[in-house]
Amino acid sequence: MTLLIISGSSRENSNSEYFAAKAADSYKGDVKWVRLREKTIRQIHDQRHDENGFDPVEDDHAEVVETMLEADEILFATPLYWYGMSGYMKTFIDRWSQAMRDPELNFKERISGKPGYVITCGGDQVDLKGLPLILQFRHIFEFTGMDFKKYFIGEARKPGDANNSDRLNHLEHFFN
Amino acid sequence: MTLLIISGSSRENSNSEYFAAKAADSYKGDVKWVRLREKTIRQIHDQRHDENGFDPVEDDHAEVVETMLEADEILFATPLYWYGMSGYMKTFIDRWSQAMRDPELNFKERISGKPGYVITCGGDQVDLKGLPLILQFRHIFEFTGMDFKKYFIGEARKPGDANNSDRLNHLEHFFN
Amino acid sequence: MTLLIISGSSRENSNSEYFAAKAADSYKGDVKWVRLREKTIRQIHDQRHDENGFDPVEDDHAEVVETMLEADEILFATPLYWYGMSGYMKTFIDRWSQAMRDPELNFKERISGKPGYVITCGGDQVDLKGLPLILQFRHIFEFTGMDFKKYFIGEARKPGDANNSDRLNHLEHFFN
Amino acid sequence: MTLLIISGSSRENSNSEYFAAKAADSYKGDVKWVRLREKTIRQIHDQRHDENGFDPVEDDHAEVVETMLEADEILFATPLYWYGMSGYMKTFIDRWSQAMRDPELNFKERISGKPGYVITCGGDQVDLKGLPLILQFRHIFEFTGMDFKKYFIGEARKPGDANNSDRLNHLEHFFN
Repeated sequence: MTLLIISGSSRENSNSEYFAAKAADSYKGDVKWVRLREKTIRQIHDQRHDENGFDPVEDDHAEVVETMLEADEILFATPLYWYGMSGYMKTFIDRWSQAMRDPELNFKERISGKPGYVITCGGDQVDLKGLPLILQFRHIFEFTGMDFKKYFIGEARKPGDANNSDRLNHLEHFFN
Repeated sequence: MTLLIISGSSRENSNSEYFAAKAADSYKGDVKWVRLREKTIRQIHDQRHDENGFDPVEDDHAEVVETMLEADEILFATPLYWYGMSGYMKTFIDRWSQAMRDPELNFKERISGKPGYVITCGGDQVDLKGLPLILQFRHIFEFTGMDFKKYFIGEARKPGDANNSDRLNHLEHFFN
Repeated sequence: MTLLIISGSSRENSNSEYFAAKAADSYKGDVKWVRLREKTIRQIHDQRHDENGFDPVEDDHAEVVETMLEADEILFATPLYWYGMSGYMKTFIDRWSQAMRDPELNFKERISGKPGYVITCGGDQVDLKGLPLILQFRHIFEFTGMDFKKYFIGEARKPGDANNSDRLNHLEHFFN
Repeated sequence: MTLLIISGSSRENSNSEYFAAKAADSYKGDVKWVRLREKTIRQIHDQRHDENGFDPVEDDHAEVVETMLEADEILFATPLYWYGMSGYMKTFIDRWSQAMRDPELNFKERISGKPGYVITCGGDQVDLKGLPLILQFRHIFEFTGMDFKKYFIGEARKPGDANNSDRLNHLEHFFN
């Protein structure tokens, strides 16, 4: 069994990545990471309704999608930026609309049924202000047929805050 | 009085832009447009906590922000991609965290109090599945001190659908 | 075809009832009303897990439920009290858990598939603060198998405000 | 310091009460309980706009409100019934609109600033389907000036489930 953690954080020493790593400590199986900031992923150009469909795009999206579809379970880890997932994460997910139309990829069949997890963190009243993000992921998982297993909202502002979080014990059995 | 419409659509002949234009027909004052797909805007690199703050970024963000801060009212028009604002829009807004730390820009003081509007559109059950986006904008406006005046959720899938929407009459008095 | 409007308003001259009546003007078929304030409906006593199930309750709940199940479409009209449906409405819906266990009633089979509508109204920022109610009804409809067709959020505070609402035109074609 | 737990559960051996009691174990101070099912509380009759205001109501509402206003902190414990607070709880809160107009009570001044907590529990996907309730309480607390400190969503269906919950450790330090 393989868990893929897709991180939307924009910096090293990321709190959301720290929480994700702590959660992954309880995973029985291999854990892989993709950090989107290390990839080049362009914004979508919506050509769903163009006669010839989407133009090919030269970037790392297809590679990350393939890694994702090969994993058994997927954890989306993103800081809460402006009360939503980071631009890195959103740009990546927007392009799924293109990937879903690639007949060789079999995107929808392969992602459907996979367990999905969300870990986010932020500052001020994050337990409340992070809820639109959770509601959004609910719809995303529903649309793809993924199974929304669990989410965790952490509180952290400065680099290093996650390490001292009083919620780390909530993550001890995240995967079991 | 000036209204700036910031569009996060990724294509020409955009339904969300059509709805925004219809709404703007009722605006008493000048209407300006920024289409983010015509701009180059990089993902944020979160350096809020770096000793030297943010590195300068060579792209169009500062110019769009300046246009935004000069406007009296701001309408965010975005298609509903994956139950949220488009990656174009999110990438743009993420960078506000950098702009807010630019002392010459006076971001927070200048944006505070401005009337804000949101227009989005999407397909399947958009009146329900678009709500996380509205909740997110509520937080964004609250944080910046903007005044969330109104939103409109349109139903449209294919190019041209907006033109035939049975909700166009809801937009007739959008601004008065 | 019959539309049943179930009103959770606690007073005569109700704004939510006014909006509902306006919407119903566009209904092609019979329109019936149940005003919950005119009925006696007790709070639920959760006996779902009792050996002998629910004790019978002497009140008007069964009668209202029967009226509801006989209708082809159902419109729930409730003022926004404390950012949710009124106590009248909630007390009524809570008791569905009991009605669903009445084998003679066939509750779930009969309600499933029925078109459902929600009309609410309130004051301060009702378009935003009414959203938890809409999200709640989404779950309610989903659980019962009802089809959430449409909702309308009106702005009104004092008796009579609805009559002067600038959104009445949104209701002109509510049912077609 | 006194914590008042207001329970909206409709039955003995309540899971939400179990979770609330576990949370209260970490409270440094006195803990009091009000179980709304043991009180008589009528639905509100909205007379906010009547010339003579609200008619007096003979029931236990005033007594419960006085207990609430005397407490230093308030925990609302409610099962998730139909994706919202129970009818007992909603009926109680609706009547605050009346209590707020009682000049001797000083409702708003006395409740403002009090720390507020919410504990709920439910079955199927409660972490997601309980969110409209949390969003609603956010607005309730905001309106009254209460300080929304924390919430807990438990998973439990049958009587006794809470006792075996794998989230009990999240409650160990609920109040510190």
